[in-house]
Amino acid sequence: MKMITEKILPDVIKKRRTDSFKSNYGKVALIGGNENFGGAIIMSTLGAVYAGAGLTTTITALSNQTSLHSWIPEAMFLDYSNINETNKLVNKMDVITIGSGLGTDENSLKVLKNVLENVEPQQTLIIDGSAIDLIATYNLQLPNVKLILTPHQMEWQKISNVKIKDQTEKNNQLAYHNLAQNHELILVLKSEHTHTYYQNDVYLNTTGTPAQATGGMGDTLAGIIAGFVAQFGYSEKVINAAVFSHSKIATDLAENQYVVLPHQISQKLPEFMKKNEK
Amino acid sequence: MKMITEKILPDVIKKRRTDSFKSNYGKVALIGGNENFGGAIIMSTLGAVYAGAGLTTTITALSNQTSLHSWIPEAMFLDYSNINETNKLVNKMDVITIGSGLGTDENSLKVLKNVLENVEPQQTLIIDGSAIDLIATYNLQLPNVKLILTPHQMEWQKISNVKIKDQTEKNNQLAYHNLAQNHELILVLKSEHTHTYYQNDVYLNTTGTPAQATGGMGDTLAGIIAGFVAQFGYSEKVINAAVFSHSKIATDLAENQYVVLPHQISQKLPEFMKKNEK
Amino acid sequence: MKMITEKILPDVIKKRRTDSFKSNYGKVALIGGNENFGGAIIMSTLGAVYAGAGLTTTITALSNQTSLHSWIPEAMFLDYSNINETNKLVNKMDVITIGSGLGTDENSLKVLKNVLENVEPQQTLIIDGSAIDLIATYNLQLPNVKLILTPHQMEWQKISNVKIKDQTEKNNQLAYHNLAQNHELILVLKSEHTHTYYQNDVYLNTTGTPAQATGGMGDTLAGIIAGFVAQFGYSEKVINAAVFSHSKIATDLAENQYVVLPHQISQKLPEFMKKNEK
Amino acid sequence: MKMITEKILPDVIKKRRTDSFKSNYGKVALIGGNENFGGAIIMSTLGAVYAGAGLTTTITALSNQTSLHSWIPEAMFLDYSNINETNKLVNKMDVITIGSGLGTDENSLKVLKNVLENVEPQQTLIIDGSAIDLIATYNLQLPNVKLILTPHQMEWQKISNVKIKDQTEKNNQLAYHNLAQNHELILVLKSEHTHTYYQNDVYLNTTGTPAQATGGMGDTLAGIIAGFVAQFGYSEKVINAAVFSHSKIATDLAENQYVVLPHQISQKLPEFMKKNEK
Repeated sequence: MKMITEKILPDVIKKRRTDSFKSNYGKVALIGGNENFGGAIIMSTLGAVYAGAGLTTTITALSNQTSLHSWIPEAMFLDYSNINETNKLVNKMDVITIGSGLGTDENSLKVLKNVLENVEPQQTLIIDGSAIDLIATYNLQLPNVKLILTPHQMEWQKISNVKIKDQTEKNNQLAYHNLAQNHELILVLKSEHTHTYYQNDVYLNTTGTPAQATGGMGDTLAGIIAGFVAQFGYSEKVINAAVFSHSKIATDLAENQYVVLPHQISQKLPEFMKKNEK
Repeated sequence: MKMITEKILPDVIKKRRTDSFKSNYGKVALIGGNENFGGAIIMSTLGAVYAGAGLTTTITALSNQTSLHSWIPEAMFLDYSNINETNKLVNKMDVITIGSGLGTDENSLKVLKNVLENVEPQQTLIIDGSAIDLIATYNLQLPNVKLILTPHQMEWQKISNVKIKDQTEKNNQLAYHNLAQNHELILVLKSEHTHTYYQNDVYLNTTGTPAQATGGMGDTLAGIIAGFVAQFGYSEKVINAAVFSHSKIATDLAENQYVVLPHQISQKLPEFMKKNEK
Repeated sequence: MKMITEKILPDVIKKRRTDSFKSNYGKVALIGGNENFGGAIIMSTLGAVYAGAGLTTTITALSNQTSLHSWIPEAMFLDYSNINETNKLVNKMDVITIGSGLGTDENSLKVLKNVLENVEPQQTLIIDGSAIDLIATYNLQLPNVKLILTPHQMEWQKISNVKIKDQTEKNNQLAYHNLAQNHELILVLKSEHTHTYYQNDVYLNTTGTPAQATGGMGDTLAGIIAGFVAQFGYSEKVINAAVFSHSKIATDLAENQYVVLPHQISQKLPEFMKKNEK
Repeated sequence: MKMITEKILPDVIKKRRTDSFKSNYGKVALIGGNENFGGAIIMSTLGAVYAGAGLTTTITALSNQTSLHSWIPEAMFLDYSNINETNKLVNKMDVITIGSGLGTDENSLKVLKNVLENVEPQQTLIIDGSAIDLIATYNLQLPNVKLILTPHQMEWQKISNVKIKDQTEKNNQLAYHNLAQNHELILVLKSEHTHTYYQNDVYLNTTGTPAQATGGMGDTLAGIIAGFVAQFGYSEKVINAAVFSHSKIATDLAENQYVVLPHQISQKLPEFMKKNEK
């Protein structure tokens, strides 16, 4: 097992070139947020935009349009019930996140299936939250694209059939290889000690704080990963840097806070990344 | 009569264990906020989330969905006119607050009755604001659960039949025991000197400021109590710590402010709790 | 002519009594904000709440409900097209402001007329912005209550028939007395040197900055006046203290800002009032 | 080619006269923001208001009303599908911006055509984003008013027929003169080194940072230009000062931020302009 420490940051967070455009920093679509869980997709969007994604579009329930813009006018909006427009837009993206606050109802399933059918090999797809649940429940096929899976332990149990108590490094690796057969896959298994699985390597996040134990942390992480991949590319190193940044900012905030709110982490990203760029 | 001082804080606000999850910090539902009093349930929600509740859902009028998320994407949303979903959700909660901005119309009554019928003995129910009013007016039965009542003096008069001028410690204790006959009950009687009644004890809050004399203070307190109970359990000590924290933060802010806005108190909670954890 | 200086502040902004309740600080209703000018009534509400009004309700177009709560959950909401509820609520108020962003269409007129007919002698009515316009255009009768009029120079021309170029102290006093015949009236005539007229006195505001020359300043002032009257009573001294505070905060901010946004002034009120209380 | 440096600022940002009114600082209308790109017009509005425009109205899709007011109550709102009211309002404006987030659908085209037909010679019209696209696609006539065009390189290719690789100073000047035949025209050609073209002069912006390479920067610039023209008049010097301010604030923020969010730039304008006024 390899340790994820802050040494990873300057390897990933590259000083931006002077002659760069927003098109150099990727197009991200974040899909999720039903009528009940709109906050989840807002938090995810904050993660992507404050991490520095070039262009971000949030595809969510119509009822989340106004609160999304109230938080972050930098993100564009699309109603996820508009399947045609969703498909057109998803085709143009570099990175797609699906699942934060998506829910598990019929409409969520429809949105998810549609994305799974339309993503293409050169695109990165981050599957989070209820999307993992739905894939497990309906036994949906993982698409042949650059995949990132970000389950917490219960979601991992569902999709891998490895019970939480049996989730040892060994068993997780077996299950990882089982899932990864036909796709590139990076697995971010979230817990109080988040592990990343990629090919034959396992990485352990060495930072984090119990002040993070509050709703919305995972949604935020999914957005930050999207922002990092959009700028720095798809690799286990980049994903590990995102995982570390998320927990390290929380840990820093927790020096003066009993609980850390997820949206605070995103808002600290620009400063944190500046300090750790190279 | 016992004094509530800051000595109570380290007894209640326990340093979080390293290996903790959001599920360790409770599931909270906050029910209230009709079309006119949406701000009340937003303030209550801020109290619960900034106090550190694990997972928070706000069950309120549809018209409050967007402003809720604009303040606090960390909270989930449910339309309180959806009685079926409300029941399903309430069943899974550890702590339920009802009444902040609920109003006293027919719909409010329906929502309240439904919750009173569905809560279960192991759950904590905080009854605030207009819910107290409605219970008094319609002579509704208090359910056999872990109860917390947070009336101001006029609401206490309504539900106890003790007139404000007669609200002595003695009379309040009698009325408390009358109400508490079949349930665990902690009574937080709000005034410029808030008292807590539990079994045969009476506690006096020793902090507070006239800068708190503005609308929304009570709603905020109800939310903070919910957040504290969700994390630290149901006991008079925990409730007293919530009461004290709310007033002490206000008192600190009032050193530099003529009036303290309720939402400011909630936003200071993470820092205040960190300083006073043990 | 008398000068309004900061000496007026400690005479008005009284240290709050320890045993005070929100009911001691007045009930305020702010009426205005049509579909196009919703921001105006939000700014007015910020003025009243941040000044310390006990309980504040904003009566405005339904389309402003969510943005109002997004700024200030401490304010309650009522749809101004609900005339019955508006009347019931207005009856319970100590101070009513009408006009900020009200507009001059048919619906605005209906709302205004209704208020003019329903206010009662012990209540303070602040008439601002388009309400002044409407009163002039439709020759509406001023009600026999404690009146405050806050026109800018063009609005004053409309309601007084004194052309801007003729608005000398002398002519304004004559017009003031003409309007004040049957009511208590305080006139705040806004310009880069705001004057207050009350009985035979004229007061000149000695502070202010050209950084205030931006839309929304008047709406904010109307709200601050409401907050001051709610707490400190109806008198020319109290109104002058509100006028001075509004301009002085702006002047202080303008030391570091080319333009001062109205909402910033309101947010500075608690600190400013604390420094100047006695 | 001339350099735009900070020496330009004190020539443009004039200390405000003590006896000034909001009417001295111009009436601005910002037109754009369809159902998907509402954030763009919000960012543009922030630019105009925080720059100090006297009165600002945002003409946009109804779905953006609430998020607009949640960011900036100082701006008034009009639904852009109300063509009659839009025309009436546009007639009263000093400066009109069209295009930020307008989109390129049928409705966008209708709104644009209507404005192009109704602007008058003494008015300044800033044409940005999708409005440039539409003008190129439908070969619409540029109106005979004070024009400012703010294309990025691809939009410039569309409207000028000069391919990006051929966009040399020489070719751009030729194309500029071709477009400017019948109108006053200032061209702001946005890239990592923004150039301004006016008559026979070409100006190069000497500041800027790759931290600006994120969505919404152009929308913000269009708003800032509108705010500057409204206050300081239509000239290449004023436009260059706006271009410089936008990039310089970003560059200052980028000392501590990996990415700069457009809304942050607008919020820094009052302080930046104060430091550079004369």
